[in-house]
Amino acid sequence: MNPDISKERENATFNVEKLTYILDGGIEKTKRRREIQSLVISDPDFQSEDLNFLTRSERYEAAVRKSAQMIVKLRKYGISDPEEIYCYKSCVHRGRSEPLDLHLGMFLPTLLNQASPEQVDTFFIPAWNLEIIGTYAQTEMGHGTHLRGLETTATYDPATQEFVLNSPTVSSIKWWPGGLGKTSNHAIVLAQLYTQGKCHGLHAFIVPLRSMNTHMPLPGVVVGDIGPKFGFDEVDNGYLKLENVRIPRNNMLMKYAKVDADGTYTKPPRDKLTYGTMVFIRSMIVGEAGLALSKACTIAIRYSAVRRQSEIRPGSGEPQILDYQTQQYKLFPLLATAYAYNFVGQYMNQVYHRITGDMSQGDFSELPELHALSAGLKAFTTWTASSGIEVCRMACGGHGYSSCSALPDIYVTFVPTCTYEGENTVMMLQTARFLIKSYRQASAGHRLSGIVSYLNESEFRLQPQTVSSRATLVNGNNLQSLVEAYKLRAAWLVEQAAKSIQQELQRSVSQEDAWNNSSIDLVRASDAHCHYVVVKLFAAKVGEIEDPAVHSVLSTLALLYALQGITQHSGDFLQAGLLSAPQLSQASQTLKQLLVQLRPDAVALVDAFDFRDEMLNSVLGRYDGNVYEHMFEWARRSPLNKTEVRSMALVMLIQLGSEIIGH
Amino acid sequence: MNPDISKERENATFNVEKLTYILDGGIEKTKRRREIQSLVISDPDFQSEDLNFLTRSERYEAAVRKSAQMIVKLRKYGISDPEEIYCYKSCVHRGRSEPLDLHLGMFLPTLLNQASPEQVDTFFIPAWNLEIIGTYAQTEMGHGTHLRGLETTATYDPATQEFVLNSPTVSSIKWWPGGLGKTSNHAIVLAQLYTQGKCHGLHAFIVPLRSMNTHMPLPGVVVGDIGPKFGFDEVDNGYLKLENVRIPRNNMLMKYAKVDADGTYTKPPRDKLTYGTMVFIRSMIVGEAGLALSKACTIAIRYSAVRRQSEIRPGSGEPQILDYQTQQYKLFPLLATAYAYNFVGQYMNQVYHRITGDMSQGDFSELPELHALSAGLKAFTTWTASSGIEVCRMACGGHGYSSCSALPDIYVTFVPTCTYEGENTVMMLQTARFLIKSYRQASAGHRLSGIVSYLNESEFRLQPQTVSSRATLVNGNNLQSLVEAYKLRAAWLVEQAAKSIQQELQRSVSQEDAWNNSSIDLVRASDAHCHYVVVKLFAAKVGEIEDPAVHSVLSTLALLYALQGITQHSGDFLQAGLLSAPQLSQASQTLKQLLVQLRPDAVALVDAFDFRDEMLNSVLGRYDGNVYEHMFEWARRSPLNKTEVRSMALVMLIQLGSEIIGH
Repeated sequence: MNPDISKERENATFNVEKLTYILDGGIEKTKRRREIQSLVISDPDFQSEDLNFLTRSERYEAAVRKSAQMIVKLRKYGISDPEEIYCYKSCVHRGRSEPLDLHLGMFLPTLLNQASPEQVDTFFIPAWNLEIIGTYAQTEMGHGTHLRGLETTATYDPATQEFVLNSPTVSSIKWWPGGLGKTSNHAIVLAQLYTQGKCHGLHAFIVPLRSMNTHMPLPGVVVGDIGPKFGFDEVDNGYLKLENVRIPRNNMLMKYAKVDADGTYTKPPRDKLTYGTMVFIRSMIVGEAGLALSKACTIAIRYSAVRRQSEIRPGSGEPQILDYQTQQYKLFPLLATAYAYNFVGQYMNQVYHRITGDMSQGDFSELPELHALSAGLKAFTTWTASSGIEVCRMACGGHGYSSCSALPDIYVTFVPTCTYEGENTVMMLQTARFLIKSYRQASAGHRLSGIVSYLNESEFRLQPQTVSSRATLVNGNNLQSLVEAYKLRAAWLVEQAAKSIQQELQRSVSQEDAWNNSSIDLVRASDAHCHYVVVKLFAAKVGEIEDPAVHSVLSTLALLYALQGITQHSGDFLQAGLLSAPQLSQASQTLKQLLVQLRPDAVALVDAFDFRDEMLNSVLGRYDGNVYEHMFEWARRSPLNKTEVRSMALVMLIQLGSEIIGH
Repeated sequence: MNPDISKERENATFNVEKLTYILDGGIEKTKRRREIQSLVISDPDFQSEDLNFLTRSERYEAAVRKSAQMIVKLRKYGISDPEEIYCYKSCVHRGRSEPLDLHLGMFLPTLLNQASPEQVDTFFIPAWNLEIIGTYAQTEMGHGTHLRGLETTATYDPATQEFVLNSPTVSSIKWWPGGLGKTSNHAIVLAQLYTQGKCHGLHAFIVPLRSMNTHMPLPGVVVGDIGPKFGFDEVDNGYLKLENVRIPRNNMLMKYAKVDADGTYTKPPRDKLTYGTMVFIRSMIVGEAGLALSKACTIAIRYSAVRRQSEIRPGSGEPQILDYQTQQYKLFPLLATAYAYNFVGQYMNQVYHRITGDMSQGDFSELPELHALSAGLKAFTTWTASSGIEVCRMACGGHGYSSCSALPDIYVTFVPTCTYEGENTVMMLQTARFLIKSYRQASAGHRLSGIVSYLNESEFRLQPQTVSSRATLVNGNNLQSLVEAYKLRAAWLVEQAAKSIQQELQRSVSQEDAWNNSSIDLVRASDAHCHYVVVKLFAAKVGEIEDPAVHSVLSTLALLYALQGITQHSGDFLQAGLLSAPQLSQASQTLKQLLVQLRPDAVALVDAFDFRDEMLNSVLGRYDGNVYEHMFEWARRSPLNKTEVRSMALVMLIQLGSEIIGH
């Protein structure tokens, strides 16, 4: 054990184990998580060479192999609780996506939800048994966000009782679905349904892609891998071009909508279930943001405790870089953010389960709010976490660029969450739509409930003259007063956005143009709303903590999180009159003191995330702090070091050198 | 040609070619650049498969091969002007680093500057002829920023007249030098010189690493590649562990310092030349920031002109995504930033050449200011450009993640500039040191000249009571008034940082601790100083433009750049009393209008950067806008598509499936 990092642990003011239980949601959950992780990590079937040393093809192969083993073992061990499956899977693939993700996460569930009972027999059982490997082909090359714009067609031919599927344009080629390129032999394809000369919009069709025997593409199916990407090396994201591909009528998923043998179309009853899935996935991503940022913070903070560099006081040796104020200022607010997002993730998970319970009772009343919240929070947390990972990486200096730090990998694995499952700006605007609608309802005298109830309170309709009188509200040492300030900021920015739309309408532009011309303000309002929610939930969580030492350190973190946000967005708070200039200066001072206060607990706070070295896979983030020896050992295994002989190109170079001499 | 992008070009309000000349620094330079680019691009020796499809080893090989060809051809064509060499090299390697960078950029120049005449004969000529291939080994595993902390030792042995080189610890292993891993057979090694029992600090030694015949490492030399990284796939960044490696006395670079045969040491005369090199490289990086961001903007803006998605007005079809206000708000301020940095890069280049002229006349007076400016601007521009590239990438939606967009590559190639040649936070603090020193001089009554002269003006020593009276200074439509506002903000923040140090000292901490405890404020002050310089230089450049149409569009860009910075840092401007809340609202309004104003010129403004398709290598950024067809064509060449047969892993997966059925 590196003595610097041992000393850090001795100096911690709280019991790390207790905080770990809080993060896991209870001691039992911690135990079970550790059991599952040990199961995977000690399993020889899940060992492999460091992925960083493999080519993309090799990484793909390794991932498929592990996924196959994983499925067998999950069934063998009888692990069937979704949370436990998720834990097992994350451990097998170290948090990376893998080629069977869409088979397990979309193909099977969609069959369960949307297939008729006969279709379940035909398709689900073989898919469960991995004879059918499927994916979910929705996004097209030219169409992502705007589903109605999808161009793929499925035209019913009553003569043969078949659907004829086509990709009528280049932009209609299915693009991006995971596992589509090489792995899957079937796909659920979203296509515009045409029957009896009429288009009935998007429906889902099960399309066989490859021979079950030879795995060769079937006639009319042009399928392949879309090529290398930023990360996701393990996944064969694919393309699919359909050229008059005929499938039986029964391959349309018919639990809700139906096409009869003669081509008569029956509309589905309204269902909000898919809406629920989207909400679920986005809520999950919020937790993922907390997890990814926690990993990055663990690596950067542990490394900053063992890295010594430069001098603060001449002659007193090189200090740990964690002693530099600028380093603390980079890392501690991100650590606080990681905690915040972990707790928000827990909350979203609980709310989701509560609301699905309500929904199964036919009560959909809370769904719109949850939908708006999950959209905005997904965008808010993924943006911050992504840029935060990069800050952590760069806080490790040069070594943060090495793959052995794991930080490049954490970034490229996480950053796509900003784009998939709803592009972030689009998400922010969805939340804004809910906020503006709520604001208008409140203005019209309706009483709002839930998280937007702050838009009710007429006192928060700020008038310019009340601004100056308000500037005493904030006490930088009082978390509750900061929550209030965030609430008022959100209310103010929602109002500003609503006013912007109003002004645009007065210039007699259309509703739609007024919306577009106000979208900068709308995104800003959503951002402030989400920020308020996060601060509020963090404060609420701190309030629940009973252990005094843990309560104390989490309070400091929550205060830091809130104050950091205020100094970063000080213009909003000043402009809205929620803070005076001297108060802002005071907030900056308090923030500096909080950094000092957190310094002795920094390593313990990342230890509490409880990442095993095997999960982090980071030389810089090792628990024992023995960074340099292991970095050397790692580098020596680099593929470029396999031979010492001169490469052909180098031989050529030397020959060219001689040529020059000859001239 | 895609009709959408054609229409964009028809609607431009200015002559693109004229703006290109301005960016290049004159029509002659544009012509010559284009000639050189054509020379390289049409040369069959520089063709290769898309690098995205190659493994790291293959990319390394391809880069060495091209570099070798490049050196021969540069000499054959007689291209010897440094700017032209740089242009040629950038074109050969498409702006990427390559294994011979340090041979050409550090090994040869260091020999020229620091070798004695005999050493030039012994080493420079063979190195020029590529018999010797060298690198520059300074950074160690445990030591980057703090050069005095380097641990490698060179101990003189008068008995044999040799230096004995050692890496006494793991942390002293040389780490990161480019070309060290596989390519070089020599290195200039920085080591602590010991002779006659005394340490004389860092000196440079020429150390043979590998046999000139077999390329095998020499006895005592442990050398290799440090493994995969975030980008820089072509470069064999290496490690070097020295175990009692003996080199002749004459292998110490002896132009300045000397060790006689008996071990007597002679100190070098003070020289500021290496200081000058650092300034030069950092100034170059500022221009690189402009270039990298220009590339990213070109890709994102062209793609946004051809990508159609969602709806603004129902029934009116999918608009170009460039018509969304949020998209404009992401991209146009970055476009303005790219222009700003291009112009600042030009300025730094001019100043550098002027000052080196002065220095060769023995006048070093301007060097400290340039040193401070280049350090801060390097940090300021690389941080913004890096995060800006990611914004551009994500503004392209899913396709921004594909390697075919080139955006992932632009990011990983550029982002290391935040860390190398001076870690950015360290750079900011160096600039702050100069600012605080200047501030104290001004406070003590000395008259400052140059760019910090704003710290002279006693009126800018803001007192709380004068703040409110000041709040009428800014006119959001007047660029000069915005330059003033930035100047006052910088002055205010330098003063705040100085006061913070003062307050710390009053708490009777040491100077060094006071500095560390104020470093958040110091970085903020440097940042504001750099921001002021950029706005000022951009405004000055606009003032030089004669063509009315070009002048008009650049004025709009400069105004957008300045206003965007104000809204992003509105807290500073409000807190310093440089702006009132209503003025800030007005600034946001004006900013929106500027987006509308720039919309018709956006594509033309990126066309003016004049990147050939071969240089961008981006399917999304193609000049003709024919994105989708070429994305499909590109993907089909992906290595994973070379076979259609089922992978071994997949076979195993299916077998496991059957096993499960068996159970």
